[in-house]
Amino acid sequence: MNGFGGFLCGGGRWLAGLVALAAVLFAGVAYAQVGEETQFILNTFSFLIWGVLVMWMCAGFTMLEAGSVRTKNASVICLKNIGLYSIAGVTYYVIGYNLMYVDVGDLIGSFKGLYGPSAEELSLLALGEGASEAAVEAAKSAVGANGYAVMSDWFFQMVFVATTASIVSGALAERVRLWTFFAFTVVLTAVIYPIVGAWTWGGGWLAQWGFQDFAGSTIVHSTGGWAALAGALVVGPRLGKFKKDGRVKPTPPSNVPAVTLGVFILWLGWFGFNGGSVLAMSGTVEAVTMANVLVNTNLGAAGGVLAVMCVSRPILGRVDLLAVLNGAIAGLVSITAGPDIVDHYWAIIIGVIGGVLCTGGIKLLEMVKVDDVVGAVPAHLVAGVWGTLAVCIAGGGDFVVQLVGVLSIGVLAFSLSLLVWFGLEKTMGARIERDHEMLGQDAAELGIEAYPEFVVVPDADEFEEMSK
Amino acid sequence: MNGFGGFLCGGGRWLAGLVALAAVLFAGVAYAQVGEETQFILNTFSFLIWGVLVMWMCAGFTMLEAGSVRTKNASVICLKNIGLYSIAGVTYYVIGYNLMYVDVGDLIGSFKGLYGPSAEELSLLALGEGASEAAVEAAKSAVGANGYAVMSDWFFQMVFVATTASIVSGALAERVRLWTFFAFTVVLTAVIYPIVGAWTWGGGWLAQWGFQDFAGSTIVHSTGGWAALAGALVVGPRLGKFKKDGRVKPTPPSNVPAVTLGVFILWLGWFGFNGGSVLAMSGTVEAVTMANVLVNTNLGAAGGVLAVMCVSRPILGRVDLLAVLNGAIAGLVSITAGPDIVDHYWAIIIGVIGGVLCTGGIKLLEMVKVDDVVGAVPAHLVAGVWGTLAVCIAGGGDFVVQLVGVLSIGVLAFSLSLLVWFGLEKTMGARIERDHEMLGQDAAELGIEAYPEFVVVPDADEFEEMSK
Amino acid sequence: MNGFGGFLCGGGRWLAGLVALAAVLFAGVAYAQVGEETQFILNTFSFLIWGVLVMWMCAGFTMLEAGSVRTKNASVICLKNIGLYSIAGVTYYVIGYNLMYVDVGDLIGSFKGLYGPSAEELSLLALGEGASEAAVEAAKSAVGANGYAVMSDWFFQMVFVATTASIVSGALAERVRLWTFFAFTVVLTAVIYPIVGAWTWGGGWLAQWGFQDFAGSTIVHSTGGWAALAGALVVGPRLGKFKKDGRVKPTPPSNVPAVTLGVFILWLGWFGFNGGSVLAMSGTVEAVTMANVLVNTNLGAAGGVLAVMCVSRPILGRVDLLAVLNGAIAGLVSITAGPDIVDHYWAIIIGVIGGVLCTGGIKLLEMVKVDDVVGAVPAHLVAGVWGTLAVCIAGGGDFVVQLVGVLSIGVLAFSLSLLVWFGLEKTMGARIERDHEMLGQDAAELGIEAYPEFVVVPDADEFEEMSK
Repeated sequence: MNGFGGFLCGGGRWLAGLVALAAVLFAGVAYAQVGEETQFILNTFSFLIWGVLVMWMCAGFTMLEAGSVRTKNASVICLKNIGLYSIAGVTYYVIGYNLMYVDVGDLIGSFKGLYGPSAEELSLLALGEGASEAAVEAAKSAVGANGYAVMSDWFFQMVFVATTASIVSGALAERVRLWTFFAFTVVLTAVIYPIVGAWTWGGGWLAQWGFQDFAGSTIVHSTGGWAALAGALVVGPRLGKFKKDGRVKPTPPSNVPAVTLGVFILWLGWFGFNGGSVLAMSGTVEAVTMANVLVNTNLGAAGGVLAVMCVSRPILGRVDLLAVLNGAIAGLVSITAGPDIVDHYWAIIIGVIGGVLCTGGIKLLEMVKVDDVVGAVPAHLVAGVWGTLAVCIAGGGDFVVQLVGVLSIGVLAFSLSLLVWFGLEKTMGARIERDHEMLGQDAAELGIEAYPEFVVVPDADEFEEMSK
Repeated sequence: MNGFGGFLCGGGRWLAGLVALAAVLFAGVAYAQVGEETQFILNTFSFLIWGVLVMWMCAGFTMLEAGSVRTKNASVICLKNIGLYSIAGVTYYVIGYNLMYVDVGDLIGSFKGLYGPSAEELSLLALGEGASEAAVEAAKSAVGANGYAVMSDWFFQMVFVATTASIVSGALAERVRLWTFFAFTVVLTAVIYPIVGAWTWGGGWLAQWGFQDFAGSTIVHSTGGWAALAGALVVGPRLGKFKKDGRVKPTPPSNVPAVTLGVFILWLGWFGFNGGSVLAMSGTVEAVTMANVLVNTNLGAAGGVLAVMCVSRPILGRVDLLAVLNGAIAGLVSITAGPDIVDHYWAIIIGVIGGVLCTGGIKLLEMVKVDDVVGAVPAHLVAGVWGTLAVCIAGGGDFVVQLVGVLSIGVLAFSLSLLVWFGLEKTMGARIERDHEMLGQDAAELGIEAYPEFVVVPDADEFEEMSK
Repeated sequence: MNGFGGFLCGGGRWLAGLVALAAVLFAGVAYAQVGEETQFILNTFSFLIWGVLVMWMCAGFTMLEAGSVRTKNASVICLKNIGLYSIAGVTYYVIGYNLMYVDVGDLIGSFKGLYGPSAEELSLLALGEGASEAAVEAAKSAVGANGYAVMSDWFFQMVFVATTASIVSGALAERVRLWTFFAFTVVLTAVIYPIVGAWTWGGGWLAQWGFQDFAGSTIVHSTGGWAALAGALVVGPRLGKFKKDGRVKPTPPSNVPAVTLGVFILWLGWFGFNGGSVLAMSGTVEAVTMANVLVNTNLGAAGGVLAVMCVSRPILGRVDLLAVLNGAIAGLVSITAGPDIVDHYWAIIIGVIGGVLCTGGIKLLEMVKVDDVVGAVPAHLVAGVWGTLAVCIAGGGDFVVQLVGVLSIGVLAFSLSLLVWFGLEKTMGARIERDHEMLGQDAAELGIEAYPEFVVVPDADEFEEMSK
């Protein structure tokens, strides 16, 4: 146990260094290390297990969004979410991973063809029963040099893409056309996100400048937030959301337990999101880091929740459960940029500030009359920017580089998204018909209501709006 | 990264073999391999972790089914699902595993008694503090020879049995008697499934012929589908489902977000279902295979979703969310027979065709007036048969052997199930009373309504049918 | 496979010992063992993965409780649950872990400051690129001596605390004040649970006496149950629950599928709860034990379900789904004290008895007019006591020690909780206003209804009660 306070880095780094020397001098040196093949297995398993949890986040977004929209639009948001995850998986296989990781010397990468196991892995898998032991050994050794199974990395990266797209679906719920949304998802997952990824995790110019964004506060969450904001501007607010007399129509979630379940799923999945982003589980350092990352992820989220429980009454007029749930997400987004390097108490502080900023952001968006059904922009974009900058305060990164990263990715993601949304608006149309919106997308676009047997209260406000 | 297209096997195998030689010649040979005890731990952990995800599929089936039935039957389907999982666990402990894996030279195996750790494991666990280091080492070595903890394998196999039973509950929902269903579950999990398992994974005659069914497209899913079909024939359709004038009464799900959540849970659990079926995580080959398996599982499901999004309008008259969700399951079932050996692009194609066949199957079942509440037969039986045959196309298996496997398992599972359902019909009665069906099983059989405070719309169609 | 019945311990231990000798004599001795660094990674990974599943139990409690309460109180129970998990995480970081594990020679531990990685871990993390290989090795070796990353253990212990608090929220639902509940949660997670933990897992006096409670039937579940019982006594029953003429008003759950989902989540999470409590995955013995633990956990739960399916009709008058779901939890709680040492058939028996006791407990609580909304006291306290004592029957523990443990922890947890609840009652007030209770906490305290669009039936009974 650590008896002097647990300063992992930042101010504590120096002290820790000194302690290190003392510790090292007294420690023995015979420490049986992890063999290469064992490392290969553990790294691969880490990608797969944590990746599976990240996939689970799609279910979290689905529940959050299906519970947040009015019942008349709950089926279509379910379809959008399972559709976007499927699209993301296929486009990232066909194009996205190519752009992001292959030949990243180019500005946007280049297309190299479909993926599969590496050449070495293929050769190892192709060795049959009759192969000599020496040949098998040599092949294993060649494969092992990569450190992990190639497709386990692909799997982990793929589930991240889907997260970006999930953020958009929530913000634009209840009025964006189904197939237009899918068309945007194709571009987002095949082009926009992969370019952002190529600049950073793909080894591009931002990575070379030293931009720090551990698991993607900016790369994943702000990118999704910018795409959502662009869409919200083009598609416009829901009918009757912002009244002519300046009042804002409250649009409470139709199914609060579903929203809560969604947030718990996201919280759980985030352990995979951040934990897996250590990208290895091959040694003592990686294991220690992974433990710190999970603890910080949890403390950040807890900080977000507790902060919003306190500030939602002064800012929003009541202890607002929805704001609290968004506070958890904001805390998670905020800590995502640096859970490996900040002290645990800093994780709480980062989460607290993320939660407060998110709650303020909800209010601000309403004031500028941008309609974001689930608060995706405050929770993912605002908290994402904060978290990326907070890496400097808490962990000692370079503020200018972080700011350049946040801005350049913001400009790219927002302008490309805006362009695509405008293009879709002019071609397919971005917004559903007025009478479809009134009737609800479930009945109008799908012919399947979410809760057909339950008696629901009609929306008087919207009817009044429509009759004008 | 693999720059020439990722042909894992099938046509690509030859090319891969050649590349292998080149790779092997250039590779060094000093590759620290995984020690036996480490292998033992990793294999055991793989069974346990992935097994836990497969258990989670029971929750997925429960949500899918509870959301699919009318509200008046939602409580009883919850009870059936938690009951069947409990029954499956106990019967598989008492009888099933015995039949499936012990003494499989016999046609149906033979009963050898209750399970527990192996004799070697027991002895190791019995060694106390005072044991000599040499004795401990020798015992560890004896245990390690098995490669994994015996009960971790039992756990993984047990959760598979439950899946088979879950398939049946959905198809027969809303009209099968509670205790009759449980009685059938006992036979299915204690006898029918274990015999199918003994023929294949237990090392029986189909295994010896070379039947390939990696994680059970046929062994698990088709078996469940056949049992469901037999039950649906004996129990008959719900009141008013098929009208005398030939019209089919639409029976939309009562809770679409619950169904969607169920499908996401199944998708997640399927990573365990297929990933764990590698049966080891002890080396480079197993790790590479597991990564490919997860990627193929995901691509198969995505293919199923995207295909049904496109074909459901021509086949069913609308973009049918329920068909799309079944498309995900059909894609997963289809890829389950060969996710270890097919190329990634083949996984997409297999999933696409699985999804299309499932959608056609939904239509076909309606035409022949078989009432399958959740589409279990198209999604598990039709897609399972397709997936098992597709192993040949995509991965080079023997078509005749695959066909024999599909047919013989089909004949066994269907005929035994039919026999049991008839027997139950004659003794306990298979179908609930007409007035119980009208009132709903929740009120009639349980006295607990699923949503007692919510006002629901009565089913006019059914009332009309009843009054005749 | 083990051909003579699988008696892991208890009566079977002797026989097993004899077999061990034979097995050992025939076994080779060259068994490549797990290196220290690999052990470190595996132990850490075990804490993290299983800990993540335990965190998931919070979502399970939330769904169980949100589905169990009437719709008018479903939002506030969601807020309580996400709030308590956040509070537990922060208090356990600031105080709880300190009390529980640091300097446990004292009766209640002592406060040593905030946590973080160990001094050795800090020094290793602080070693930069330029460090000599020897220094890195020495540091790794020093870190490795601990066997696991310090914060991975913290993470695993933290999620346990949250479980204790979750038990309380369910029992007191629908009438305890929001902020009072949070205040109690602070004390429970910062003081009461850590003291119980210090006595046992922290190495205190009960541990030294030989008290056996593997994963916390008593330490976690009974403690939570006692705290819930104390709260229920102080807060009192819901309006109209116990009528003056002696009748008990039935209060069925408002959303049965949500309750069922919650129980499945808990069952899943319990694999982490018990599996992770092996506290290591570093060798053959640990892997074998973990497999046995998961199997016993599952069999215990299955036993609980099947038992209640049979006894709920005679005891409660119908096949009661809610009692069956509680039976699963009771089975899980019962087996939690000794899943590592009991035979598999004993696990079933323990679960069966746990389920029966729980069902009887539900009836008994009603008879003594204690209102426990979700049956938390029967499922966690009664089954927890039974499970802790059953360790003796099934696994050979010392009955007196077990009884002393159960009683002393009971007295501590109940009396401290009662004191705190009384204090809160006198200061903040424990119970909501009568008219708030009538209106529902969602509208009265939060201003957010759980299902605002759905038409619900007003509670006539309660209205009548109120008008008196």
